[in-house]
Amino acid sequence: VRAVVLDGQGGLEVASWPDPAPAPGEAIVRVLVAGICATDLELRRGYMQFRGVPGHEFVGVVERADTQPGLIGMRVVGEINAACGACDLCATGLERHCPARTVLGILGRPGAFAERLALPARNLRLIPDEMPTDRAVFVEPVAAAFEVLEQVDVRGRRCLVLGAGRLGALCARVLGIGGAAHVTVVSRGVEKLAPLARDGIETHAAADVEARRSFDVVVEATGAPTGLEAALRWVRPRGTVVLKTTCAGAHTLNLAPVVVDEVTIVGSRCGPFEPAIRALVAARLRPEETVDARYPLARAAEAFEHALRPGVRKVLVDMEGHCP
Amino acid sequence: VRAVVLDGQGGLEVASWPDPAPAPGEAIVRVLVAGICATDLELRRGYMQFRGVPGHEFVGVVERADTQPGLIGMRVVGEINAACGACDLCATGLERHCPARTVLGILGRPGAFAERLALPARNLRLIPDEMPTDRAVFVEPVAAAFEVLEQVDVRGRRCLVLGAGRLGALCARVLGIGGAAHVTVVSRGVEKLAPLARDGIETHAAADVEARRSFDVVVEATGAPTGLEAALRWVRPRGTVVLKTTCAGAHTLNLAPVVVDEVTIVGSRCGPFEPAIRALVAARLRPEETVDARYPLARAAEAFEHALRPGVRKVLVDMEGHCP
Repeated sequence: VRAVVLDGQGGLEVASWPDPAPAPGEAIVRVLVAGICATDLELRRGYMQFRGVPGHEFVGVVERADTQPGLIGMRVVGEINAACGACDLCATGLERHCPARTVLGILGRPGAFAERLALPARNLRLIPDEMPTDRAVFVEPVAAAFEVLEQVDVRGRRCLVLGAGRLGALCARVLGIGGAAHVTVVSRGVEKLAPLARDGIETHAAADVEARRSFDVVVEATGAPTGLEAALRWVRPRGTVVLKTTCAGAHTLNLAPVVVDEVTIVGSRCGPFEPAIRALVAARLRPEETVDARYPLARAAEAFEHALRPGVRKVLVDMEGHCP
Repeated sequence: VRAVVLDGQGGLEVASWPDPAPAPGEAIVRVLVAGICATDLELRRGYMQFRGVPGHEFVGVVERADTQPGLIGMRVVGEINAACGACDLCATGLERHCPARTVLGILGRPGAFAERLALPARNLRLIPDEMPTDRAVFVEPVAAAFEVLEQVDVRGRRCLVLGAGRLGALCARVLGIGGAAHVTVVSRGVEKLAPLARDGIETHAAADVEARRSFDVVVEATGAPTGLEAALRWVRPRGTVVLKTTCAGAHTLNLAPVVVDEVTIVGSRCGPFEPAIRALVAARLRPEETVDARYPLARAAEAFEHALRPGVRKVLVDMEGHCP
């Protein structure tokens, strides 16, 4: 297949890559579109010593599925963690944390910036006909936002999201769906706040507000290693900080305030697809409005550069070249 | 009064200090004994820019209590956080986090290494006659250990305590009281493990074991800024780390594992006195066995030096000079 290939040192090229060979129980999916996520940009910079084909936000059509032939020809998205199904964590429903797992486009499994990919058939989820592909490509990041609701009861709580980037904006909207009493977003990038403000979310440019330790729940989605420190300036004593940023770098931090104020810090990663698909079907979220650009696979290098620009939200790579 | 006075730069002397003047609602307590805690050693080194009289683990006799004269002559311990009683946090039962609070011997209120101290009368708790004073002086640190049970449900969970110092040893025993399925203690200092092992707790010298990410709950009580990093090597994905160490220093840490493994980190400080007193009355804990030395007030400088020695557990300062 043709695919985006990272060399682990910042280099990116569109090159030939071995066709995915399905292991028992796996399906082959022809990729329609894939979205560029902050993690992809980190992987390119060397996060997780990654080399190979990245990409984990995708929509595709099933081409082969020996164990579930009914899937063939269907439009799907896929849970990105492929678990062993046999260990203690899998047995307790924590497949997304299986220590033997591979992760699509992140760990031990070539990703979605390719013409075809392989995933266990049980990881695939059907997309209803009425949902546009450009909305369905957001199922994975929307699920990551819904993970906050799985971990923290936000009902009736005053919530703050730090960062209005791709994930921060989704988290702000999902907190509202989850019953938060009030959602505020604070971001350095002012240009990303307008669409949130239009939807009735309280927004502030970081430069205009002084941190006050008053929020019950702070979702840290800054994408910066300084994010936790910032979140600790906003969360109330005994409040909760949800950490969404995965950063390649280490950071110096004084943890005494966490202990003195008995703050709870909850690391939060991938989430459940089902509530994400339901919210997208019901159009409670319309993240396709945040697609700022799309590129054909051959121009994926440009797509990655575009995604790095300040203020840019979602950039898609269209494997079939349907670009404006 | 005669008191231990810290100069905020490592200096300690026993000197005269103004007699405590009770504010409305406050009682005057004649101190019998006070225990030296890791926080006191940190305060001496400059933590919290502290100057003045430290000490927050004490037993005393009430000398004056205008609003609750029935307390006069009674033996008491005292909750160390003196809250305003009027703010939002006080209104929701979080007096220990009142932003206007003073904290005995730590923040804005002279402490217990003195002949007399002042505390709000409502902070005082009676000690039953049958409880020895040397056991009662542990109510405050035992309460800090019970705080873990307030914050985390440990019932049926596999728990690890990192550090077998004063607080770590108490936490290990309190986890057992709280219904943990199994309690393991790992410590650098081997000499502190024997008494825990005698009581049936699984113990290991840190040098002898390799970290495996398998514990549901890890209580970090190392007293070192590297403690969180160590705890993250032992906690299972989706598990909980309870942070007990308050350190003056900053530390460099890579937070990506917290997010990837969705670990919850819970800062934990002071706890409720009632369950601590109940456990000590029932002799489910006999922490007085960990008193390694006692000094009269005049020799408090020696007491602090003694408390710093490796392997030493509790050192008491006896205000009335009842020392062997």
